[in-house]
Amino acid sequence: MDAKENNTLIYGKNPTLEAILNNPKRINKIYIQNNISYDNKLKKIIDCANLNKIIIQKTSLQKFKEHFDNDVNFQGVIASVSPVEYIELDDFLNIKKEGYKKLIILDSINDPHNLGAIIRTAVCAGFDGIMLSNHRSCPVNSTVEKISSGAINHIPIIKTTSLSAGIDLLKKNDFWVIATQMQAKDNYYEIDYTDMNFALVMGSEGSGISKTILNKADFTVKIESNFESLNVSLASAIIMYEALRQIKTKK
Amino acid sequence: MDAKENNTLIYGKNPTLEAILNNPKRINKIYIQNNISYDNKLKKIIDCANLNKIIIQKTSLQKFKEHFDNDVNFQGVIASVSPVEYIELDDFLNIKKEGYKKLIILDSINDPHNLGAIIRTAVCAGFDGIMLSNHRSCPVNSTVEKISSGAINHIPIIKTTSLSAGIDLLKKNDFWVIATQMQAKDNYYEIDYTDMNFALVMGSEGSGISKTILNKADFTVKIESNFESLNVSLASAIIMYEALRQIKTKK
Repeated sequence: MDAKENNTLIYGKNPTLEAILNNPKRINKIYIQNNISYDNKLKKIIDCANLNKIIIQKTSLQKFKEHFDNDVNFQGVIASVSPVEYIELDDFLNIKKEGYKKLIILDSINDPHNLGAIIRTAVCAGFDGIMLSNHRSCPVNSTVEKISSGAINHIPIIKTTSLSAGIDLLKKNDFWVIATQMQAKDNYYEIDYTDMNFALVMGSEGSGISKTILNKADFTVKIESNFESLNVSLASAIIMYEALRQIKTKK
Repeated sequence: MDAKENNTLIYGKNPTLEAILNNPKRINKIYIQNNISYDNKLKKIIDCANLNKIIIQKTSLQKFKEHFDNDVNFQGVIASVSPVEYIELDDFLNIKKEGYKKLIILDSINDPHNLGAIIRTAVCAGFDGIMLSNHRSCPVNSTVEKISSGAINHIPIIKTTSLSAGIDLLKKNDFWVIATQMQAKDNYYEIDYTDMNFALVMGSEGSGISKTILNKADFTVKIESNFESLNVSLASAIIMYEALRQIKTKK
């Protein structure tokens, strides 16, 4: 339950339904109380949530009481809302830009501190967008917003239900996919980042990048280390800044 | 008071005195209770601490009770001990190495998470040492050890009472000093790191590097950003890995 991490909450059926109808992309998760009776409004919430692939989490009354404000009559429903407007990958691809686009894709980054740090660095390094999985990522919540120093409002954040399908669409649109992997043969600085649209895929420290996505990558690269592997926010910064260095020194 | 951050503590007069006499470098700080009567042993502790430039912090009985284990008879004296053996700069300079040495100097890095992350990255990037100020740095305590994933035991850590005097000694020993500064003219990748012993100086996000040290630098470099400045652990990683990239691609 990430509710305590996220202070943007919507309490009750009507406000939740309104939020789904108006801005479904912005909803990170909907909590519904266990064993509650399903009236028409709740059924509509669930239908709309399913239609928009929003995660529904069944939660006991006790957990609701532990994690949320007790004084609000929440009617068994609470929606957790992102402080950021996510965009569709199509909309990202339609953004006009002179020169090539640089995207960073995060696979299973569940720690809000890492996510916030990576978003901030992506903005610092002039990246054009960030793509996250709906189900396999920490949501962009207020902790992420804080750690990013507000950088979440300075870069398009694409939330997709399938990173794999997203990568297919990127490849069809002339993006090259670079995945990072400890076992890769090439070093990250042996790639030429200056001559292509590219998407850099970073995985979590624990599980790395999923096999399906690794198989779709055009390049896999590693960062050498004399010790353990680097934390994902440091690894991301090193590669993003190498790309920026190449672009700046080529001009 | 960093006591809670540091679980390596020595309680009482005799153990503290013994620790100072045996291994003064390892003591981060000595806490002495306010208004305690100074017997010969306590006087000797204070003399030895002053001789070794160990920080003494006068502390109220209440604070002792809040921050330390209550059940121990501490006799008004507690020493906080580092989990790492610091070394002298002279000893670092005497370490034999084929090729050039790479040192990172941290000026006023007070956050143990940043310090731990930088030490870990320095080991990953194959740096030869880290230099900290005795008075203007977070001590290498157990939080730093944890964040560094134990990397503190894989690199010499030099603790000096004056970074400025340390830098003078480094320069006399054929080290070039590179300081990072937002306002610098040159980018960090415009320096050739392959042909010299160098010391990279990183400052805190808040106050940066002190003027005295900036004035001693042979080069000042910046990291470009389209947003705010980068966190010091990310900035350190970017520059250390650029140095490593240059060294690896030159061979």
